[in-house]
Amino acid sequence: MSTHPITLGQLRALVSGMPFNSLLGIKVARMHADGVTVEIPFREEMRNSAGVLHGGVSATLVDAAVGIAITRHFGGRRLATTVEMKINYFRPIDSGKVAARSRLLRVGSTLIVGSVELRNGKGELAGAALVTYMLLGTGQRAG
Amino acid sequence: MSTHPITLGQLRALVSGMPFNSLLGIKVARMHADGVTVEIPFREEMRNSAGVLHGGVSATLVDAAVGIAITRHFGGRRLATTVEMKINYFRPIDSGKVAARSRLLRVGSTLIVGSVELRNGKGELAGAALVTYMLLGTGQRAG
Amino acid sequence: MSTHPITLGQLRALVSGMPFNSLLGIKVARMHADGVTVEIPFREEMRNSAGVLHGGVSATLVDAAVGIAITRHFGGRRLATTVEMKINYFRPIDSGKVAARSRLLRVGSTLIVGSVELRNGKGELAGAALVTYMLLGTGQRAG
Amino acid sequence: MSTHPITLGQLRALVSGMPFNSLLGIKVARMHADGVTVEIPFREEMRNSAGVLHGGVSATLVDAAVGIAITRHFGGRRLATTVEMKINYFRPIDSGKVAARSRLLRVGSTLIVGSVELRNGKGELAGAALVTYMLLGTGQRAG
Repeated sequence: MSTHPITLGQLRALVSGMPFNSLLGIKVARMHADGVTVEIPFREEMRNSAGVLHGGVSATLVDAAVGIAITRHFGGRRLATTVEMKINYFRPIDSGKVAARSRLLRVGSTLIVGSVELRNGKGELAGAALVTYMLLGTGQRAG
Repeated sequence: MSTHPITLGQLRALVSGMPFNSLLGIKVARMHADGVTVEIPFREEMRNSAGVLHGGVSATLVDAAVGIAITRHFGGRRLATTVEMKINYFRPIDSGKVAARSRLLRVGSTLIVGSVELRNGKGELAGAALVTYMLLGTGQRAG
Repeated sequence: MSTHPITLGQLRALVSGMPFNSLLGIKVARMHADGVTVEIPFREEMRNSAGVLHGGVSATLVDAAVGIAITRHFGGRRLATTVEMKINYFRPIDSGKVAARSRLLRVGSTLIVGSVELRNGKGELAGAALVTYMLLGTGQRAG
Repeated sequence: MSTHPITLGQLRALVSGMPFNSLLGIKVARMHADGVTVEIPFREEMRNSAGVLHGGVSATLVDAAVGIAITRHFGGRRLATTVEMKINYFRPIDSGKVAARSRLLRVGSTLIVGSVELRNGKGELAGAALVTYMLLGTGQRAG
């Protein structure tokens, strides 16, 4: 599905230059035909007041999962920005690696929509999301 | 609207104990009859690949704005968890204080729904959100 | 806020030509500086299996409330299409007039986002929504 | 996944008693291990002002697809109501049968979340949705 081939190493290099994703420790685990899997290690400072993973961390991971799939799709040649995001949380996460698997459902000339499945360290489905990005002319990256 | 009165100082003390909110520097700026205003200072490490505020930071702020409004509503006596969240981004944010003003639209016996307006440092509307929390028995805090 | 003045009568005439809105009986009740109020009479055939207003009727009303606000904003001179919609239901509706009050929060060159409050026949808040439309070149109407 | 076996014929009989779904002509096409496929014939009165399928019809179909999957899951023994819904529209639909394939992603003791894929008459992906229902005690049906 990718229009400009890019290796996993090249994608990881691009992602490592994204400040907030780096702060949280988001890594690209795998590339798929229609998206990517990104992961984040659960850390103590990511807890909310109930003692589990803050919904904002999951939202960041979900947003990044679609953004990085777009970066990969265009080989890092297009800039895009998040237009809107919707996430459902199914169960609390309190340890292990959190994984987000994105799929680009629609790549239009203006808008791109991706779906995301969120999984906890045991591989259980922990959430689902829909994310819309808008392409921004001939810039460089999304994520 | 609050069922258990709490002062701004008490609310700030509760919020300062929420790890991820503290990591990002989220502060309660004001309490309103129907919600709260929370703020976050824009910092370099919050940038995304396009160089502006990462959508995940805004999502965290929005989630927190409703959670903290619930903490305030119940005087910190009830525990709640985010069920789902929806956010629309209107314009990029790249400096100043980001503010989220929440309103509790519906406080049910099981679910609570809040709306949020997101504003950039100039006070311009930068996004809008709807967030649903579920009350979790007789616990202590949401946020 | 409207760029091309249009009277309530002219707007109603445009809306009466929208087939599905007419099938459901959607009427423009009022125009506001930043949006419109549209109404629909509750009818027996609008019930769901639980005996109350089907969520799809509310979703139609909400979608229409923003679309008609866009029609009004551009004086019927621009064509737009729904990109995405999010609606929260607060309480069942089972009689009277259902009203949706839309506000255009963001009118961009490509995307338009509106918020909507849904009220039952007693004027109680029954739901809230966020709706995104995309402008489609120099067409004629949205709704 | 279903807790109370029900045949396709029995499910269709339940659905035919749901007023608004019947008005639009929603039919259960297939049952799957994790959900159902429902269909609606495109009709002239379902057009919006742009001349294509009104977003409210798609929203109704999506809402029904998850509700009917819940009816099937519980063999018609539980009552549920839509809490919130989010739908993304990918392309206009203007003829043929519209199909919605639901999957129950999470069946909790209080909330149920389903995802839906919307397809046009050619089988192309025309939209995607996430829908949350709440179980309502020991009632009878969702849809």
